[in-house]
Amino acid sequence: MTESTKEVKIVTAAFLIIGNEILSGKTQDTNLQNLSKNLNKIGIRLSQARVVLDIEEDIIFAVRELCAKYNYVFTSGGIGPTHDDITTNAIAKAFGAQLYSDDYVYSLLETYYKNRGDAMNEGRAKMAIVPQGCTLIENEISTAPGFALKNVFVFAGIPRIFNAMLNAAIAKNYISGGSVMHSQTVELDILESVIAKQLSDLQVKYPLVEIGSYPQIGYTQIVATSYYPHLINEVIALIKTLAPMR
Amino acid sequence: MTESTKEVKIVTAAFLIIGNEILSGKTQDTNLQNLSKNLNKIGIRLSQARVVLDIEEDIIFAVRELCAKYNYVFTSGGIGPTHDDITTNAIAKAFGAQLYSDDYVYSLLETYYKNRGDAMNEGRAKMAIVPQGCTLIENEISTAPGFALKNVFVFAGIPRIFNAMLNAAIAKNYISGGSVMHSQTVELDILESVIAKQLSDLQVKYPLVEIGSYPQIGYTQIVATSYYPHLINEVIALIKTLAPMR
Repeated sequence: MTESTKEVKIVTAAFLIIGNEILSGKTQDTNLQNLSKNLNKIGIRLSQARVVLDIEEDIIFAVRELCAKYNYVFTSGGIGPTHDDITTNAIAKAFGAQLYSDDYVYSLLETYYKNRGDAMNEGRAKMAIVPQGCTLIENEISTAPGFALKNVFVFAGIPRIFNAMLNAAIAKNYISGGSVMHSQTVELDILESVIAKQLSDLQVKYPLVEIGSYPQIGYTQIVATSYYPHLINEVIALIKTLAPMR
Repeated sequence: MTESTKEVKIVTAAFLIIGNEILSGKTQDTNLQNLSKNLNKIGIRLSQARVVLDIEEDIIFAVRELCAKYNYVFTSGGIGPTHDDITTNAIAKAFGAQLYSDDYVYSLLETYYKNRGDAMNEGRAKMAIVPQGCTLIENEISTAPGFALKNVFVFAGIPRIFNAMLNAAIAKNYISGGSVMHSQTVELDILESVIAKQLSDLQVKYPLVEIGSYPQIGYTQIVATSYYPHLINEVIALIKTLAPMR
């Protein structure tokens, strides 16, 4: 086996963003970028994302389809205390899992609110309800945990909390990556349409490198991505011969 | 029929974002927000979004599933001159449509490049290739058009061009909306978990209004959305009694 064809372990993930506020345009999602970059570091490629409304059957349909196709599914949103937070329920239904109120989580929440001079109520108690058989994911920001059920990781939508849960899941090794994809970017002082043929020929010659061409105002950004860094180097060197660097 | 139950015409859309650069985190999508807000103005609700890699079978699978479920599908990305622009081909395949080189588009592109002291080449010629039976969508920015095939609108990914194509399609009445969804936002100086029960009761009482609760740092944003503005007014008035306004 040559270096250029050594085995790689491909691990993939999908991201399911749950929330009317994203689809209505009220809120700009920023978790996708963060998730993608963090997963890439541990050798997981984000390969699809979906945004769905707070509609139970839409969540169930999406999660079932995605968890069958990708190694991991991450969800954001819908695990708070209010009536429009329906993610936990939908994920449990998607897998036929029963829900229960977790005593440990309940006591954590009780302490958290007590320390703020407050007490539990129906909405807060809801955040202690999780599916049977799930693994809890710590939330160092606001206590109410995320969870993992099978290959689905259920996180909060608020970016700071999403990030804390993602970091916690990675730190605990609940997520196992594979080979890391590398990439290099080169900026050429030319329109992409001028060098389209050459890029296409290069892509045919290097099937193990994804060559992406991204037109910018007045120049072109070319990104070479691959599991094989030495092939990226070869491709980038050849691309640099096509036009002056910016 | 009372005012509160008068018929509404529900028209839905999905957005399919095509491009490795979005999933890798290299590029932050901004077209979703823009699409959603513009569609909402003409009575179309963006009801799902997906982001897929530049992989033909992924695009075909997504577009088929979405165009069967929603009234309209909009796509962004992958219609440029380079080898990684595979959207047109994938959309044609999804519908079993043949591709052809459109003489009118070819001559437009020829003129466009001529005026810039340049000429056609293989990559540029690729942008004149569209599916049989499609409707061309004008691109006032950089000439190469988008197109509509059945209920699928295929637009460029670059936000300025995406926007120009969307505006052109709306101006030409290629897109027919329905009832407009209205919404009002109120900000309460309280944690959402304190009023979760009351919001839930209100949601049960007003099934025709979607009540969304969005925790912010130190306060709660509540959005009431409905096809019935007078019901929104009732709900917002009741929400304002729950806690002091921010």
